[in-house]
Amino acid sequence: MAENTKIPYKIYLEENEMPKQWYNMRADMKNKPAPLLNPGTLQPMTAEELEHVFCDELVKQELDDETAYFDIPQEILDFYKMYRPSPLVRAYCLEKALDTPAKIYYKFEGNNTSGSHKLNSAIAQAYYAKKQGLKGVTTETGAGQWGTALSMACAYLGLDCNVYMVKCSYEQKPFRREVMHTYGANVTPSPSDTTNVGRQILKEFPGTTGSLGCAISEAVEAATTREGYRYVLGSVLSQVLLHQSVIGLEAKAAMDKYHITPDVIIGCAGGGSNLGGLIAPFMGEKLRGEKDYQFIAVEPASCPSLTRGKYAYDFCDTGKVCPLAKMYTLGSGFIPSANHAGGLRYHGMSSVLSQLYDDGLMEAVSVEQTSVFEAATRFARVEGILPAPESSHAIKVAIDEALKCKETGEEKTILFGLTGTGYFDMVAYEKFNNGEMTDYIPTDEDLEKGFAGLPKVD
Amino acid sequence: MAENTKIPYKIYLEENEMPKQWYNMRADMKNKPAPLLNPGTLQPMTAEELEHVFCDELVKQELDDETAYFDIPQEILDFYKMYRPSPLVRAYCLEKALDTPAKIYYKFEGNNTSGSHKLNSAIAQAYYAKKQGLKGVTTETGAGQWGTALSMACAYLGLDCNVYMVKCSYEQKPFRREVMHTYGANVTPSPSDTTNVGRQILKEFPGTTGSLGCAISEAVEAATTREGYRYVLGSVLSQVLLHQSVIGLEAKAAMDKYHITPDVIIGCAGGGSNLGGLIAPFMGEKLRGEKDYQFIAVEPASCPSLTRGKYAYDFCDTGKVCPLAKMYTLGSGFIPSANHAGGLRYHGMSSVLSQLYDDGLMEAVSVEQTSVFEAATRFARVEGILPAPESSHAIKVAIDEALKCKETGEEKTILFGLTGTGYFDMVAYEKFNNGEMTDYIPTDEDLEKGFAGLPKVD
Repeated sequence: MAENTKIPYKIYLEENEMPKQWYNMRADMKNKPAPLLNPGTLQPMTAEELEHVFCDELVKQELDDETAYFDIPQEILDFYKMYRPSPLVRAYCLEKALDTPAKIYYKFEGNNTSGSHKLNSAIAQAYYAKKQGLKGVTTETGAGQWGTALSMACAYLGLDCNVYMVKCSYEQKPFRREVMHTYGANVTPSPSDTTNVGRQILKEFPGTTGSLGCAISEAVEAATTREGYRYVLGSVLSQVLLHQSVIGLEAKAAMDKYHITPDVIIGCAGGGSNLGGLIAPFMGEKLRGEKDYQFIAVEPASCPSLTRGKYAYDFCDTGKVCPLAKMYTLGSGFIPSANHAGGLRYHGMSSVLSQLYDDGLMEAVSVEQTSVFEAATRFARVEGILPAPESSHAIKVAIDEALKCKETGEEKTILFGLTGTGYFDMVAYEKFNNGEMTDYIPTDEDLEKGFAGLPKVD
Repeated sequence: MAENTKIPYKIYLEENEMPKQWYNMRADMKNKPAPLLNPGTLQPMTAEELEHVFCDELVKQELDDETAYFDIPQEILDFYKMYRPSPLVRAYCLEKALDTPAKIYYKFEGNNTSGSHKLNSAIAQAYYAKKQGLKGVTTETGAGQWGTALSMACAYLGLDCNVYMVKCSYEQKPFRREVMHTYGANVTPSPSDTTNVGRQILKEFPGTTGSLGCAISEAVEAATTREGYRYVLGSVLSQVLLHQSVIGLEAKAAMDKYHITPDVIIGCAGGGSNLGGLIAPFMGEKLRGEKDYQFIAVEPASCPSLTRGKYAYDFCDTGKVCPLAKMYTLGSGFIPSANHAGGLRYHGMSSVLSQLYDDGLMEAVSVEQTSVFEAATRFARVEGILPAPESSHAIKVAIDEALKCKETGEEKTILFGLTGTGYFDMVAYEKFNNGEMTDYIPTDEDLEKGFAGLPKVD
C-alpha cells in the first residue's frame, strides 16, 4: 500500500488536534453494564451513597450510562499537555524482525514519570477532588504505578495524597515508594495502625505483609472517616474507563490523520483501565454499526478472569467493604500464585468490558508469563523500549497475530496498547534472564474455591 | 510577546525536519583543542595508534578539526527515529511556579530506555563498529546509563557488547545491570579475572569493590587483546560531542521554527557529552560571529573541574592506559567524596569544552548537591518529570537565572538540557527525602593532592 512510505515512525498529534472530550462507551451500549450494588442491602447504589466515598462529579460520571461525551476541563487539558499526546508508533523494526506483512502500531503511554497510562485518570480524579474543595484523597497501591500517578497529580494541584501501600511492596520496592515521597505523598505501609481495619488485621495476623484487599479497606476507611477526604481508584470503575478513553481517542485521531484503519485492536486487561480506554472510540463505531473491528483482551493465564471466570455479582475488594459489581470474576478471594511476576492480578474485570465481552463484542485470550517475557525481550531489543510486564501481554498477542499474517499473507493492521515501561520491574526481568521464571495455571479446583466465595445475589 | 500564545507545551520536529548531519564545533574554533598524546611518547596520537583502540571511522571523526558537517548514516537516522526527535518543552508550569517573566525551555533527552542522551553516541559508535565488520565492542560503566545505551545499540545491530561494570554498582544497582542483560550484553563486575589488569588488581586488593578507572583499564585491555573488538567511550571524546550535536541541532531547529532565540543556554557538565551536544550549533554561530549567546556549564561543587581545576595535559583514566588529553582537570587521581550522589564525577572535561572555556566563550558555575535535589524535587512536582541528578544541576541554575529575571524584570529566554530521568537514582532521592544528604566541597589541600599527580608535559 502506498500509505506505507508516508507513515512516520511516530505520530504525534498537534496540541490543537488533541481530544477535548472523553468518550463514554456506555452511551452506545444496547445492554448497559449492571449497576453497582450496596453490599449491605444488595440494592443499586444511589448517588448519595456513592458520594460518601467518591467525589460528587465522579459519582455523576460513574452513574451516567447515557451521555456519550464529557468535556475535559481546561485544567486537565493543560496537565495532559505536559505528557500528552503520547506517540502512536509504527513498529517498523518489529515488523522487519518478524518478517510479517502485517502493519503493527502501538500507542505508547509510558513516557511520563508514573511510567504508565494511570496518570490520565489520576489527574482527573484529583482535579474533581480539588474542585469540590476537598483537602485530599486516599488510595491503595500494590506495585506502585497508580500510587505514583496519583502522587504526581496531587503534587501538581496541591492536594494531600495518602497512599496505603501493601507492606511487602513498601519494603521490597523502595524505589516507587521514594518517587511518591518525592512528589510529597504520605505513603503508609498496610496494614497500619492508622485505621480500625488495619489495627484489627495487625492484631489477628501480627506478622502479615499485607494484601491489596487490606490496603483498599484501609484507604476507604481513611477517606470516609476523615473530614474533607474521598477515596480514588485506578481501574475497574466506569469513570476510569471514561478518563482513559483519551488513549483511544488520540490513537484514532492519529490513525485517521494518516488514513489508517486497524483490523485488530489488542490490549492487556487487569481491571480494564487501559483496554477500556484504548478501544473506546473504535468500540463506539462498532456499537453504532458504523465499522467492525476485532478486539482482543489479553490476560495472564494465572489470573484468567475473562477466559475462565464467571459473569456474576462480586465484591470489588477482598475486604468486602466496596460496592458489588457484576463482572467476569474469579471470586474476590482468588489470589494469583506468588510466582506471578507482572501486574494484572485483579480477580475481576470492569463491568463495562465484562458486558461487552458477554455480548460477544470482544474476544479474550490468556497467555503464560514466560512467553510474555520472551515477547517483552524480543520487543525491547528491536523497538528500544523496555516494556512493563503488563503491557507485554499485549505485545505477545500482537506478535502472535503478526506471525499468523506471515503464514496467511494477510496485510492486517494491528494496533496494541503499550501501557508502560518496566524500569521498576527489573526483579521480574532478572528472574526471566536467569531462567528462574516458571508458569502457573490454576486448576479447576483452584478456581472452584474462588467461585465458592461469590456472594449470593438475585 | 505575541509568540507566547502560540508556543505549544512541547515542540516535536517532523521526521523530515530532523537533522541529517552532525555539526563539529572544532571546525569553527580559532583555537583548536590540543591533540591527544601518546602516554608513552608524549607525542600526538596518530590515526594508526588510535585505530588500535577505536574503530577507523571514529578515529577519523576524532582527529578531524576541519570538517564542519558529517552526514549521519541512514541506519543511524533510522535508529534515531525510534526515540527522536526528543521534545523541546516550554516549562510553562515551572515559569508559573517561579512567577518569573523569563521563558524557560528544556530539551528532554530522557524518553528512551537508556534514560538519557547517551544513546545518541552509543548507536553511532556501535554502527561504525558493525560497518567495520567487528564482532563487538567493550566499554566500562559506573551507574550504568552509558552501558545501558550501548547494550541497546548493540542489540539492535546484532553486535557483541561487553560491559565492565564497577563491582559496587554491579552489586548495589542490580536494576541497570538487568536492563543490560535484557538487551543481551555481557556484564562483568570489575575488577574481574578476565583481564591481566583485573587479575593484578584483585591480587593486590582482594576485597576491592572496583573503580571506574579500573573498569576502563579492563575494557581497553579486552578490546585491544581480542580479535574483532574495539573500545568505546560515552563522553569526553570529540567524536562523542560530534554525535551529541544532534541534541542542539534539533533544539535549534525547533526554536527556529517558532522564531525563538535563547539568551542563556545551560547544561550540566561531567565529561561534557551533553553540554557539548546541546550548545554545538549555537556556539557555532557565536564562533562565526553571527550571534551571541551566554553559555553556562554547571558542575557539582564536589567535583569542580572547570571552576577550580587546572588547564593541563592529564590522563583520561585513573589507570593511565588511555591517551593524555589537555583539559580542565582535577588530576586523574582525584576521587569525589563518597557522599556525592549524582553522576558528573569525572575528574576532567572534554578538550573541546575546555578550550572554549579557556577562550572565555563559555561560563561555568558549581552547585552543591542538596540545592540540586531541592531544584529537582521542585521541578518534578510542577513539570511532572522526575529528573536525573546530573540533569538537575542544569535545572538548579536555570531556576536561579529565572529568579534573577524576576528581580530585574528581564524577559530572558532560557534553554537548558534535561539529559535524563532519575528512575534508577531513587537511593539518592531517598537520602534527600529523609534529610540525610549533605554537601561536600573539597578543600584547596584536597585539590592540591589531585594536581600533584598531573603528568609532566612540555
